[in-house]
Amino acid sequence: MAAGNEYRQRRQAVGGGLAARKLDALLVAYSANLRYLSGFTGSNGSLLVLPDRAILFTDPRYQIQAARETDCQVKVAKGPLVAAIAASIARLRLRRIGYEPPRMTCDWFDSLCKSVPSRASLEPVSGWIEELRMIKSPVELERIRRSVETNSRAFQQVLKHVRAGISERDLAADLEYRMRRLGAEKPAFETIVAGGERGALPHAQPTGAKIEAGSLVVVDMGAVQDGYCSDMTRMIFLGSPGPKVKRTYRAVLEAQAAAIAAVRPGVSTAHVDRQARNVLKAYGLDAAFVHSTGHGLGLEIHEPPRIGKRDKARLETGMAITIEPGVYLEGFGGIRIEDTVVVTEGGCEILTPTSKDLQVV
Amino acid sequence: MAAGNEYRQRRQAVGGGLAARKLDALLVAYSANLRYLSGFTGSNGSLLVLPDRAILFTDPRYQIQAARETDCQVKVAKGPLVAAIAASIARLRLRRIGYEPPRMTCDWFDSLCKSVPSRASLEPVSGWIEELRMIKSPVELERIRRSVETNSRAFQQVLKHVRAGISERDLAADLEYRMRRLGAEKPAFETIVAGGERGALPHAQPTGAKIEAGSLVVVDMGAVQDGYCSDMTRMIFLGSPGPKVKRTYRAVLEAQAAAIAAVRPGVSTAHVDRQARNVLKAYGLDAAFVHSTGHGLGLEIHEPPRIGKRDKARLETGMAITIEPGVYLEGFGGIRIEDTVVVTEGGCEILTPTSKDLQVV
Repeated sequence: MAAGNEYRQRRQAVGGGLAARKLDALLVAYSANLRYLSGFTGSNGSLLVLPDRAILFTDPRYQIQAARETDCQVKVAKGPLVAAIAASIARLRLRRIGYEPPRMTCDWFDSLCKSVPSRASLEPVSGWIEELRMIKSPVELERIRRSVETNSRAFQQVLKHVRAGISERDLAADLEYRMRRLGAEKPAFETIVAGGERGALPHAQPTGAKIEAGSLVVVDMGAVQDGYCSDMTRMIFLGSPGPKVKRTYRAVLEAQAAAIAAVRPGVSTAHVDRQARNVLKAYGLDAAFVHSTGHGLGLEIHEPPRIGKRDKARLETGMAITIEPGVYLEGFGGIRIEDTVVVTEGGCEILTPTSKDLQVV
Repeated sequence: MAAGNEYRQRRQAVGGGLAARKLDALLVAYSANLRYLSGFTGSNGSLLVLPDRAILFTDPRYQIQAARETDCQVKVAKGPLVAAIAASIARLRLRRIGYEPPRMTCDWFDSLCKSVPSRASLEPVSGWIEELRMIKSPVELERIRRSVETNSRAFQQVLKHVRAGISERDLAADLEYRMRRLGAEKPAFETIVAGGERGALPHAQPTGAKIEAGSLVVVDMGAVQDGYCSDMTRMIFLGSPGPKVKRTYRAVLEAQAAAIAAVRPGVSTAHVDRQARNVLKAYGLDAAFVHSTGHGLGLEIHEPPRIGKRDKARLETGMAITIEPGVYLEGFGGIRIEDTVVVTEGGCEILTPTSKDLQVV
C-alpha cells in the first residue's frame, strides 16, 4: 500500500528546493504534510527534511509503527520532540531552518526558538508542501477515486431504506457504517444529515430529530480511504416536492453545472465561483449562497485551492476539487449539490457517480 | 440541552478574573475552550471575553447556528475573523488582550498583531481555560457518565458477535455504529482494533487483516455524547489463552488496580503513574510500558491533567481521568486495560461498568 518511491521522490523535490530558498532544512510538523512526505500516520511526529535525506522524530508509542510506515531515518524521543529536534539541528550545524507558520502553534515555536543554538534561525515557509499537494499524482487520484466510489456506494445502499421517522443521527450512523464496511477508514468529516428547516444550517450536525414526510433532507458525506478524502452532497425529498422546492433545486443544479462547465486548466478559481453565483443571481438567490463554491481535497478534506469569490489561484491539471453551491433560507431549509471533480487537460472529470436528480423517496 | 446558565457562569468567572491578570479581554479561539465558554460548536469562531460580556465572531455559514447555540453577542464577519476581531478591539479601545499561545498558530498570531491598533498589546495566557475545564461540574460529569455507558453498551453488543475471520476494520465499524445508534455523536477517536502482533502498536489503526483464532485483540474505543468523551480499552482472546498471555494480562490488571487505588484528591499524578509502573517492574515488564498511565478527558479526549512519570499536577475532586497502563512486546502483541474514573472526595469512582476479565470468546 505504501508507495515508498513516491514519498522518497517528494522528499527529494523538497530537499532539492532548499538551496533556492536559502534553507539548510525544512521542519515539517503538520500531520498531513508529514504523511505526504514520509507515509507516517502517527499523531505525534516531525520531519526534518535535509538536502539529501530526512529524519522523522516521534515518541516511543510510535516506534514500531514509524519503522513500518516510513523509510526515513527515525529518531524516537523519550522527552519532548522539540528537544530532540533542536539537538539534531545543533549536531548537524544547521543555520537556516524553515518552519510552517500556518501550522505551528505559538507555543511550539517559542519552545523551538529557545531550544535551538543561537546561530540557528527559523525562517517562515508558508504553503510550500500544500502547493505540492495541490497537484495529485496518478496514485493519489486513484485513491481519491476509490474514496469517492465508496462514498457513493454507501449513499446508494442507505437511500433504499430512507423513510419518514428515521432520526438524522441514525441515518448519519448508517451512512458512516456503510462506508466503513465498503473499505473506508473513517468519515472525512461529521456526516451532515439535516431535515427540513435545519437544512438552512450549512454545517448542521445531525440531531435526534426524526425526518418527517414532506421534508427536504441535506446529506453531505465523505469518506477517507487509504488516507484520501471524498466529498458529496445530495438532496432527498420525502414525498412529493412543491413548486418552491423544485424551483430552488433547479437553480442550485444549474449553478453547479455552470461552475463545473467552467473548470479547466488556467482558469481562476474566482471565475468558477462566479459562474455559480451568476446563475443564482438570475433566480434572485445569490444572497442565500453564503459560502464559497468549493475547495481542494486530498489527504485533508479542505485543502488549497479554495474556489471562492476572492480567490486568485488558477486551476491546473491534476487538482481535485469540490463544486458545491448551495442556498440557505431560514424557515425553508437548505439545498446544496456537490461533486468531487478532477481538473483534466480538456476540462474536468466528475468523479462522483451518483445521480444529481432530487432523490424523491 | 444547552446549559445556558453554566456557560454564562463560566464567562463570568473568566471576565471577573481579567483584572487580576491585568487584561482588558481574553481572546479564545481554540474550539474546545470556545465551546466551554459559549456553547458554540461551529468549526470557525473566536470569543472575545470582556469583564462584563463576551462577543462571538464567526462566519456566515454559522450565523443561524450561533444564534441558536449561544447567548453571547454574535458578530458575523464576511471576511477573515481576524479583521473583525481587530476592529472590535480598536472600537472598544482595549489595550491588553490575552491570547492562547498553545492553541494559536504563528500565522494567526502574526495576522492579529498586524491588525490590532498599535496601542494594543497581545499577552500570552496559557492553560487558564484548560485549568477551569479540569474540574468537571455535575452537569459535565453526568454527560461523561452517559458517554461512558454508551461506549460500554456498544462494546457489549458487539462482543457477542466477535469470532475469528472478522476483519479489524469491520469490528471497528461495528463498534462505532453501535455507539452512534446508542446516542453518541461520533467516536472520540479512531477506534483501535488490533489483533495479534499488531497489538504491539499502542495506536494501531484497524486494518483489513482478519482476526485469527488463538489471537489476542486490543479494543480501545471512546464515544462523544453531548460533546463529552469516554475512553475504554479491553482485551479479547479468541480461543484458549496460554501462560504468557495470562501472566502478562495479570500484570497489567494488577498495575491498573494499583494506579486506581492511588487516585484521590491531593495526590500527584506522577504518584499514580508510579504505582502502575512499580507493579510492572515486579513482573519485569516496565520497559514495555511505553506511555503514560492516563490523561484527563472531557470536551476533548486528551485534556489536562496528564498522569505520567514527570507530571506534577495534583488530583482534585471532580477531575475525570483515564487509567490505562499497557505493555507492548514486538512479536507478541499488546495488552492494555483502561477505565474512565472520576476523582471523588473519598478516592475515585470507576465509571466504566465493563468487566475487566480477559474476554475469552
